[in-house]
Amino acid sequence: MKRSEVTEKILDIKRMKGWDWAGIAKKIDARQSPFYTTAGLLGQMKLEPGQAAKAAKLFGLTKMEEKLLAEVPYRGSLPPGPPTDPLIYRFYELIQVYGTTFKELIQEDFGDGIMSAIDFDMKMERQPDPKGDRVKITMSGKFLPYKRY
Amino acid sequence: MKRSEVTEKILDIKRMKGWDWAGIAKKIDARQSPFYTTAGLLGQMKLEPGQAAKAAKLFGLTKMEEKLLAEVPYRGSLPPGPPTDPLIYRFYELIQVYGTTFKELIQEDFGDGIMSAIDFDMKMERQPDPKGDRVKITMSGKFLPYKRY
Amino acid sequence: MKRSEVTEKILDIKRMKGWDWAGIAKKIDARQSPFYTTAGLLGQMKLEPGQAAKAAKLFGLTKMEEKLLAEVPYRGSLPPGPPTDPLIYRFYELIQVYGTTFKELIQEDFGDGIMSAIDFDMKMERQPDPKGDRVKITMSGKFLPYKRY
Amino acid sequence: MKRSEVTEKILDIKRMKGWDWAGIAKKIDARQSPFYTTAGLLGQMKLEPGQAAKAAKLFGLTKMEEKLLAEVPYRGSLPPGPPTDPLIYRFYELIQVYGTTFKELIQEDFGDGIMSAIDFDMKMERQPDPKGDRVKITMSGKFLPYKRY
Amino acid sequence: MKRSEVTEKILDIKRMKGWDWAGIAKKIDARQSPFYTTAGLLGQMKLEPGQAAKAAKLFGLTKMEEKLLAEVPYRGSLPPGPPTDPLIYRFYELIQVYGTTFKELIQEDFGDGIMSAIDFDMKMERQPDPKGDRVKITMSGKFLPYKRY
Amino acid sequence: MKRSEVTEKILDIKRMKGWDWAGIAKKIDARQSPFYTTAGLLGQMKLEPGQAAKAAKLFGLTKMEEKLLAEVPYRGSLPPGPPTDPLIYRFYELIQVYGTTFKELIQEDFGDGIMSAIDFDMKMERQPDPKGDRVKITMSGKFLPYKRY
Amino acid sequence: MKRSEVTEKILDIKRMKGWDWAGIAKKIDARQSPFYTTAGLLGQMKLEPGQAAKAAKLFGLTKMEEKLLAEVPYRGSLPPGPPTDPLIYRFYELIQVYGTTFKELIQEDFGDGIMSAIDFDMKMERQPDPKGDRVKITMSGKFLPYKRY
Amino acid sequence: MKRSEVTEKILDIKRMKGWDWAGIAKKIDARQSPFYTTAGLLGQMKLEPGQAAKAAKLFGLTKMEEKLLAEVPYRGSLPPGPPTDPLIYRFYELIQVYGTTFKELIQEDFGDGIMSAIDFDMKMERQPDPKGDRVKITMSGKFLPYKRY
Amino acid sequence: MKRSEVTEKILDIKRMKGWDWAGIAKKIDARQSPFYTTAGLLGQMKLEPGQAAKAAKLFGLTKMEEKLLAEVPYRGSLPPGPPTDPLIYRFYELIQVYGTTFKELIQEDFGDGIMSAIDFDMKMERQPDPKGDRVKITMSGKFLPYKRY
Amino acid sequence: MKRSEVTEKILDIKRMKGWDWAGIAKKIDARQSPFYTTAGLLGQMKLEPGQAAKAAKLFGLTKMEEKLLAEVPYRGSLPPGPPTDPLIYRFYELIQVYGTTFKELIQEDFGDGIMSAIDFDMKMERQPDPKGDRVKITMSGKFLPYKRY
Repeated sequence: MKRSEVTEKILDIKRMKGWDWAGIAKKIDARQSPFYTTAGLLGQMKLEPGQAAKAAKLFGLTKMEEKLLAEVPYRGSLPPGPPTDPLIYRFYELIQVYGTTFKELIQEDFGDGIMSAIDFDMKMERQPDPKGDRVKITMSGKFLPYKRY
Repeated sequence: MKRSEVTEKILDIKRMKGWDWAGIAKKIDARQSPFYTTAGLLGQMKLEPGQAAKAAKLFGLTKMEEKLLAEVPYRGSLPPGPPTDPLIYRFYELIQVYGTTFKELIQEDFGDGIMSAIDFDMKMERQPDPKGDRVKITMSGKFLPYKRY
Repeated sequence: MKRSEVTEKILDIKRMKGWDWAGIAKKIDARQSPFYTTAGLLGQMKLEPGQAAKAAKLFGLTKMEEKLLAEVPYRGSLPPGPPTDPLIYRFYELIQVYGTTFKELIQEDFGDGIMSAIDFDMKMERQPDPKGDRVKITMSGKFLPYKRY
Repeated sequence: MKRSEVTEKILDIKRMKGWDWAGIAKKIDARQSPFYTTAGLLGQMKLEPGQAAKAAKLFGLTKMEEKLLAEVPYRGSLPPGPPTDPLIYRFYELIQVYGTTFKELIQEDFGDGIMSAIDFDMKMERQPDPKGDRVKITMSGKFLPYKRY
Repeated sequence: MKRSEVTEKILDIKRMKGWDWAGIAKKIDARQSPFYTTAGLLGQMKLEPGQAAKAAKLFGLTKMEEKLLAEVPYRGSLPPGPPTDPLIYRFYELIQVYGTTFKELIQEDFGDGIMSAIDFDMKMERQPDPKGDRVKITMSGKFLPYKRY
Repeated sequence: MKRSEVTEKILDIKRMKGWDWAGIAKKIDARQSPFYTTAGLLGQMKLEPGQAAKAAKLFGLTKMEEKLLAEVPYRGSLPPGPPTDPLIYRFYELIQVYGTTFKELIQEDFGDGIMSAIDFDMKMERQPDPKGDRVKITMSGKFLPYKRY
Repeated sequence: MKRSEVTEKILDIKRMKGWDWAGIAKKIDARQSPFYTTAGLLGQMKLEPGQAAKAAKLFGLTKMEEKLLAEVPYRGSLPPGPPTDPLIYRFYELIQVYGTTFKELIQEDFGDGIMSAIDFDMKMERQPDPKGDRVKITMSGKFLPYKRY
Repeated sequence: MKRSEVTEKILDIKRMKGWDWAGIAKKIDARQSPFYTTAGLLGQMKLEPGQAAKAAKLFGLTKMEEKLLAEVPYRGSLPPGPPTDPLIYRFYELIQVYGTTFKELIQEDFGDGIMSAIDFDMKMERQPDPKGDRVKITMSGKFLPYKRY
Repeated sequence: MKRSEVTEKILDIKRMKGWDWAGIAKKIDARQSPFYTTAGLLGQMKLEPGQAAKAAKLFGLTKMEEKLLAEVPYRGSLPPGPPTDPLIYRFYELIQVYGTTFKELIQEDFGDGIMSAIDFDMKMERQPDPKGDRVKITMSGKFLPYKRY
Repeated sequence: MKRSEVTEKILDIKRMKGWDWAGIAKKIDARQSPFYTTAGLLGQMKLEPGQAAKAAKLFGLTKMEEKLLAEVPYRGSLPPGPPTDPLIYRFYELIQVYGTTFKELIQEDFGDGIMSAIDFDMKMERQPDPKGDRVKITMSGKFLPYKRY
């Protein structure tokens, strides 16, 4: 069985029930970020066994599907090539435009290394604005210095 | 003359002088984010004529080079394909892993549309942490709803 | 269930009934552009719940299919690479030939920014011409200036 | 000599002189669309010998450069792959999203064939709008029916 | 239903019956080139309703399949990338080798424009030759001059 | 020295002299097809030593350049990917649309094998037509049957 | 029905029966090279009707499958991109390393032309060697000179 | 200095002198295969210091160029993508057509492993044939069994 | 039947049983490295008939599935393009960063040749470390010198 | 100035002097792994200012070149696509074959996370072996667990 089949089943049930991710995430684990839980249900993160059990109950999943949710997935949520969906493409565009700037400024402040995408967290907020509300995304990743040896 | 030649010249001078972007940005326009100014000097953003004049003085640029800095560039700072540099790749990886999650959560909260990469700003901070300092990036983009017609 | 399956079902029924898009669009929402409605039925735009309900009735769709039509799709209607279909390729060719001209002329008139593809509308008309009728396409997108920060 | 070298020289002179395309186009041929003339100076269209002569005088070009402007170029103004520049990318995105809709609606109205990108013209206007001015682009291409044989 | 499924069904029946394209084309429309009819049955051209009806009778197609044959297909008969089949690759090779020669000679004789691939016809003949028979292909496409505007 | 440098030099001289390919080809070898000679001067075919000598005299080439013209080139006249130039693209499109038809019809008539692109010749004519003159291309390639062993 | 389905069926039966290609090839046509016959059963060569009949009997194929074996396939046995399988990749590597050497040496000896991959045969032998046996492959292709015209 | 510059210089001198590879190879090392020596001079193999010295004398190379010839090159003689040159492409086509056959037959005879492209040699001969001479290539590579561990 | 179907079945059963690779490998062949056995069960290595029989018993496989495990697979465990999964990508990144260093240092020590990926073994260990445990991978491949001929 | 120009200069001097990496690395910093130092001189790692000064003295570099060596490079030492050089390709092949095995075994032992390519070190040894010496590579990377949030 493939993880993508579980994702499709979850999306089908969510659609028919009219649920939202915020509510689902709260039911699966209220102390965990909805970002993380949603990514898990979309097949990109591993749920803890207890969380997978709650998800299985909520969505009526089989034992096999529940166990798949608690397994580390082969990550990568997009078809190959630059993303065609405009919402996702804009993030890709930011890397095209700001990639070298990220590199210069992070290295100037921290030295040679990277911002971890593993020891990493993120949150999203709605920023009210009279000219039109804004999407605010805050990322935080541990700086990992290149080891000299 | 190509914008990339100006970028290379600026990097050469910065290297020999031992300057840093924070200081350079302050001299060019203290009220503008160093993110924006650095991106401009790296050939991805247009500087205002007054800023370009200050940059020209600082780096000893020709009139042609100064005018190029005040021109809208053909944007795109990276060679084709997924970025090979590890620092920049990690951002690309975040889109691979979280792309569909961004889509689901932004649309759930805001409806059909995108986070603008044009009416957009960003800042970077060092987040002290006993387990190792963290890179904190805050992005804010105006939500643009799809127009119905 | 995948949106592309709904698209295929809609095309099958339209073919057997001998309907046309103009008529279908009028039945689903007479005040909305046939461009928008057709794009929705082809899986590229979100229909409003009321429109989706009408579409479901017209095409005999299941509840799941109706709800999919009212969901934001993962956009991108073409296989990867330059489009092989000649009608669609000609639009791609226009970007190849006129891409830099668009950039120069829009920026000369409006400054640094883009023509939105989100706050955007379009219409198509038949332009009678003794030498052969012409396809006339009118696009209008809000100009979005790059935010300085 | 390569056409792209002429383009670069023209852009350099235009930049130093502070000219704009509208004014340049008027001087080269006031009866020809600025769209066409700009595309010619950017290396995508062939200028008539008389126009090339005027361009040569205006920009101080050599005889070789003048003749290159009057030659049919190898068309294609963009590096390979989806365009990285956001302004140009938005046009590419429109094809991704509306490609199949163009196909359906043009064929429904005109039958089997294409909108010519050769017997084609285009104009761009500024559309004042209290919520933000809009870019209006009007394209018109002869419909070419597939020949049966 | 997909056009490629009709193509596969037609090929299956042709194989079992031992028919050839020449005979099939004659039965479907004796006045139409076998090139055009074969391309239609292979999913690249639209058959006229009367022709599709004859094809449906000949191959025992369903009403849906018959209607698909009379619909404009999404053209493109090959997998992406240079064709791997040697017979088809040789045509691709001719473009690789003679592409710029076609451009120079057509433009020298006709001016700036293209040979239409839409207002186009083609025929294939066997050319007897003592050193080995030859395949002779004659193509004729209307010259379309670039419109000046 | 690279063959492409000879091609560029020849194009520069031809442009300044105002010569055409038909005339050039006649001077280099009146009994040889202008197609072949033009392809040679564009770096895709090998000229005979005597022809290369005539070309060298006509264009004022160095001995090295003359010898390069008489050498077999690394063939391939186009940048990678589908050709962006509209005139050349139309030939590519014909393969996309008719590729499988070529295969079926050549094999039906000749058996398993290919039309040679090596033992091959081609000519181009102007076909006068009241609705607009046509480009007529006639190709003839030896049929090569697959050897059984 | 697709040729690849016949290939898969043949491989399944061969595996269960524990047969080898050498033996299979002998049964299908003892005078034909096992190279050719194996390539045919793997979907890359056309079998003669009599050979296909024998193959059908041996593998218990349907009439449709038998006829497919006697049809010219769409050739190309590998997924797109450089082959990932190490055994096949080594052949690809030889072309990467020796491609220009093949070109120089064949042309030096034979003149302008190619080694045919159609009028071609090949055999494979085991070459005993105390330091480890060797795979010996002998290819022979007719030299085809470029036709001058 | 780049190895490709040495290759270009060697080709220039060979062209002006009218030498052939057979003769050159004999002068550099008569006991070594011309295949190997030619590949070395084309930048794909390392010459022994003594051979490089002889090549340097023959071609009038600098010390730096001589030393480069005696260095292991970064191998790969072709631009990316399938080779566009017809002579080289035919070898690529053989892998496309026979790739899976090579795999099946080598493994059937030798077991799990590969034919080495490193412990490998090759020779080329002219095979006289009344129907047209043939190119005969004999490859021999040590079989390397996969190590079990 | 495809090898990937066996892989999927094995993963499904392992998941439901809650087994781990270490235990599975021990049951299939305690003297063989778990690396090798796991790669075999994932479709990248050939199991010996006896090992395949044990695997078949353990996982309840059919005879066909058992035989597939004992067959040399078409190797290549990843979708095309750089791997999107972060764990696997890090290995790819090491080649991007250290590729030329591997080449220089292996050649300096061993001469012209390669480290075999066939006569090769590997092991993985957990390296306890107070700052966080480390993954230690030890690879050993026979050096294969380029054969001179 | 570009880092690749410094790399080329260093390789030129090393070649003329006949130095080896082991000796160079010892002179630049005897306590640092030759792996790291070589990677630095090849443009993939940052040298410490003191090391760069020693390298500058050794190779006779300019101040600009010295400073470039002490700057974080844009990493990625290979042209795009799978590496064509056989020595480097073998490492790529190991990822193709063992990629999923790495993933399964690391995750089984360590949980969800990755082996860091940043907090990473590596060494290479010659492993004497009567059947042919072996290349032994030992890698050690810190395990980084995915952060839950």
